[in-house]
Amino acid sequence: MKNTQNIYDNDTFFEGYMKLRDNPDNMNINLVNPAFFSLAPDLTGKIVLDLGCGYGENCAKFLCLGAAKVVGIDISEKMLNVAKADTNGIEYILADLNDLSDITGKYDAVFSSMAVHYVEDFNKLCAQVANLLIDGGYFIFSQEHPFSTSPMNGPSWTRDEDGKRTHYNLSDYGRLGRRETTWFVDGVIKYHRRFSDLINSLVDNGFLVEKVLEPLPSEEVLVKLPSYAKEFDKQSFMLIRGRKIREIVTPAVQ
Amino acid sequence: MKNTQNIYDNDTFFEGYMKLRDNPDNMNINLVNPAFFSLAPDLTGKIVLDLGCGYGENCAKFLCLGAAKVVGIDISEKMLNVAKADTNGIEYILADLNDLSDITGKYDAVFSSMAVHYVEDFNKLCAQVANLLIDGGYFIFSQEHPFSTSPMNGPSWTRDEDGKRTHYNLSDYGRLGRRETTWFVDGVIKYHRRFSDLINSLVDNGFLVEKVLEPLPSEEVLVKLPSYAKEFDKQSFMLIRGRKIREIVTPAVQ
Repeated sequence: MKNTQNIYDNDTFFEGYMKLRDNPDNMNINLVNPAFFSLAPDLTGKIVLDLGCGYGENCAKFLCLGAAKVVGIDISEKMLNVAKADTNGIEYILADLNDLSDITGKYDAVFSSMAVHYVEDFNKLCAQVANLLIDGGYFIFSQEHPFSTSPMNGPSWTRDEDGKRTHYNLSDYGRLGRRETTWFVDGVIKYHRRFSDLINSLVDNGFLVEKVLEPLPSEEVLVKLPSYAKEFDKQSFMLIRGRKIREIVTPAVQ
Repeated sequence: MKNTQNIYDNDTFFEGYMKLRDNPDNMNINLVNPAFFSLAPDLTGKIVLDLGCGYGENCAKFLCLGAAKVVGIDISEKMLNVAKADTNGIEYILADLNDLSDITGKYDAVFSSMAVHYVEDFNKLCAQVANLLIDGGYFIFSQEHPFSTSPMNGPSWTRDEDGKRTHYNLSDYGRLGRRETTWFVDGVIKYHRRFSDLINSLVDNGFLVEKVLEPLPSEEVLVKLPSYAKEFDKQSFMLIRGRKIREIVTPAVQ
């Protein structure tokens, strides 16, 4: 894990992040989570893996939804220490999502919330997740929308004289790979992939793409948080549900 | 077909369009077509339908690629008249892609090049295409990239003092539906759909999404047409290959 960034163990980052997560107005609660859990199959009695589990919030939810066993993986010892203090019945493993080859077992569902954009090689991740899934198992993840990871200089908007957003400044969409941005601290590394790159990596590794979501704020959320209206101009999140398929019966075209 | 626009039979549009298509520097030849034909399966002996065939350029290519029979559909009588003068062995039908219910027969592959963004109800199109395909048959289409159909006021760029493009002005991505733009003539109607809307309509109508392409210019094209470098900031086209599946063997998660 020597060469992988671990911003979550940086004190400044950790404090900023925990404050954000505790804020009931954060985008995870209002936009990502409803879409994320809408993609979950019935978890009753299932074995679940959570990639980039952070302080274990979703792991606890998977248990509530009936999962028999939950394993959470994160690179941050600080996050896992918070996780371990809070919950029972969940196994936490300190590991790097860039290489899951030491993770053992077979899972009914692999979830990952807002972590995949930190992984350098998405194709390798798909291959390793496929290995960890039973036939018919689900890979469900949320990540920053390719719109957000696209610009080399980080996301930005153009505003009119009154400060109102007029449009999002889209650039570099076709330039794949490493992006260095600031989020609480400088030098946060993410990886930009296009929509097609995500879908094709899933397909190439034996996943059926079952659903793609680009969540928009509900009217209720817009009343509470009017600034979320910007999501109608440029979306912030993308979620995908893939299913590991054993066999597709497509007779040769006759 | 009373309520469907038919810009292709407008004289001004038709002349402008034919000049564009005859220009060897056009984006269809340099960017869309190589990606489009890379998605084609072996067409030897196959029965092919071309939706929005225009003046039949691709229909002739499908014959060259070995297709036993090609049917081309277009709403423009002017376009079909050009098509009929040029080729043999192809059946042309004057019809509106907004409703394919009068089209009969079963096809091994349904192609559509740069026409799907004119269709109001993509979900209905997917359902009707699925009905026209044999099990295992392909639906392969190119369309304007959602980036291009997104802004309510049409696509635009911000440029620096030297006139160099700095970024694409992205807005209205989450606002689906009708767009009125100018292309040779005023009042050209297109329909904006997001990535997720396209994929989910295909999946919901029994298609396996096999490949998504967002084609970038080759080095050869960039030498000839340096302005195409803008595609690395904002892509213009998206192509998808779906396959009509009979059955997916995904055992229930145990």
